[in-house]
Amino acid sequence: MAITLAEANRMVQAAVAKADELSVKVSIAVCDAGGNLLAFNRMQGASAVSATVAQGKAAASAGFGRASGTLQADSPVIQSVIATMGGRMLPAQGAVPVLKDGEVVGAIGGSGATSQQDEECAQAGSAAL
Amino acid sequence: MAITLAEANRMVQAAVAKADELSVKVSIAVCDAGGNLLAFNRMQGASAVSATVAQGKAAASAGFGRASGTLQADSPVIQSVIATMGGRMLPAQGAVPVLKDGEVVGAIGGSGATSQQDEECAQAGSAAL
Amino acid sequence: MAITLAEANRMVQAAVAKADELSVKVSIAVCDAGGNLLAFNRMQGASAVSATVAQGKAAASAGFGRASGTLQADSPVIQSVIATMGGRMLPAQGAVPVLKDGEVVGAIGGSGATSQQDEECAQAGSAAL
Amino acid sequence: MAITLAEANRMVQAAVAKADELSVKVSIAVCDAGGNLLAFNRMQGASAVSATVAQGKAAASAGFGRASGTLQADSPVIQSVIATMGGRMLPAQGAVPVLKDGEVVGAIGGSGATSQQDEECAQAGSAAL
Repeated sequence: MAITLAEANRMVQAAVAKADELSVKVSIAVCDAGGNLLAFNRMQGASAVSATVAQGKAAASAGFGRASGTLQADSPVIQSVIATMGGRMLPAQGAVPVLKDGEVVGAIGGSGATSQQDEECAQAGSAAL
Repeated sequence: MAITLAEANRMVQAAVAKADELSVKVSIAVCDAGGNLLAFNRMQGASAVSATVAQGKAAASAGFGRASGTLQADSPVIQSVIATMGGRMLPAQGAVPVLKDGEVVGAIGGSGATSQQDEECAQAGSAAL
Repeated sequence: MAITLAEANRMVQAAVAKADELSVKVSIAVCDAGGNLLAFNRMQGASAVSATVAQGKAAASAGFGRASGTLQADSPVIQSVIATMGGRMLPAQGAVPVLKDGEVVGAIGGSGATSQQDEECAQAGSAAL
Repeated sequence: MAITLAEANRMVQAAVAKADELSVKVSIAVCDAGGNLLAFNRMQGASAVSATVAQGKAAASAGFGRASGTLQADSPVIQSVIATMGGRMLPAQGAVPVLKDGEVVGAIGGSGATSQQDEECAQAGSAAL
């Protein structure tokens, strides 16, 4: 039930298309359930750091199984979990989990615009699955 | 007076049975008094991160000798203790200590559902001892 | 194609049975492709640290897609990879990858006896899939 | 003179096509001159860790301006440079720099097959620019 590469690329393209529609420049990352990258695109004009941030948001969303924007970033518990998971998760708005048959199989995350817009792009990508 | 492997496995099974009853998907960890793992199961559908979180909650509960949900996560003292223990404890609800003759011999922790449900599963496991 | 919990538990039991046959005491960990735990048992008499070591070996084997004993532990490259993956992998003999249709879906690792025996237990577990 | 997203995606596709030709499964990462990701694909069957390794090799190649396989991994100088860059570079074979008008504008790196094959895929990607 994992996300296939074809599906991941389709999600990336749909998210980038949404960013075009919103006239913003973003990085889009699709990862598997363990937070490791499957497909990625950074639009011209999106910052260098957005490449890492998009991956971190997606890993957080996949790891916790919910939208990264619902994670309380200043919670000592959330911070402790992130530390024990190697520090590779970013608990900030912009990523949503990807489900198949009700099971979290990965996540898609955006970065580069406002957090709200990042998540909108991620949701458009997720909807393309 | 340590927890035997047979006991640990019985506790894991009882906790998983409780999760089934609650229709939630969880990771269940049983550890010894030092916080090191004895037995573990992650149900299909429970997030990858729940595997680490369940162990961290159990280690916190065993280490402090009380339900992990009673630990004040933002206390600098609690955080310092956790740091000196290598950062492997999670002071969040979901684990309860396991006692024999009034002595803490370990703990059982759950992760993957709500903190309340995680603890309910852990308690069901503890009761099976 | 992920490892089911039933399969993971069957693998753990087969590895423990092999340890009994060899008269050694081990921890056995089965993890998914991302290195996160699925099922675990520590036999009475196996050291506390074997609980963490078995998980680290399994994560290394799953991550690199080969027996953890074939990883060159003193290679700066291997060490760098482990660091970027959050330090949770142990490049030491005792774990083997678990494959379905030629794809790495996880790994099983042992710790507590000699590295050679640890791997023998892991292989017996893998064969029970 | 930076690599455009269209160029990065074309390079990724050419590298994946080469991997198909070699019957291997790889992750392919294209990064900018600063080592930050532009485009990425992980083929089904390539290990989770290959996602991080491909990025690390590409970052090393872009950062040092030469094939990552020519970097002496056990050199204290190389290791110090990597440490000051946040540990995100992997000095292992598999990535080549991407040049425009003799200037390093980024790199492409592969991981998942043998280092030799990883580099072959990266070179095929680079040639598609």
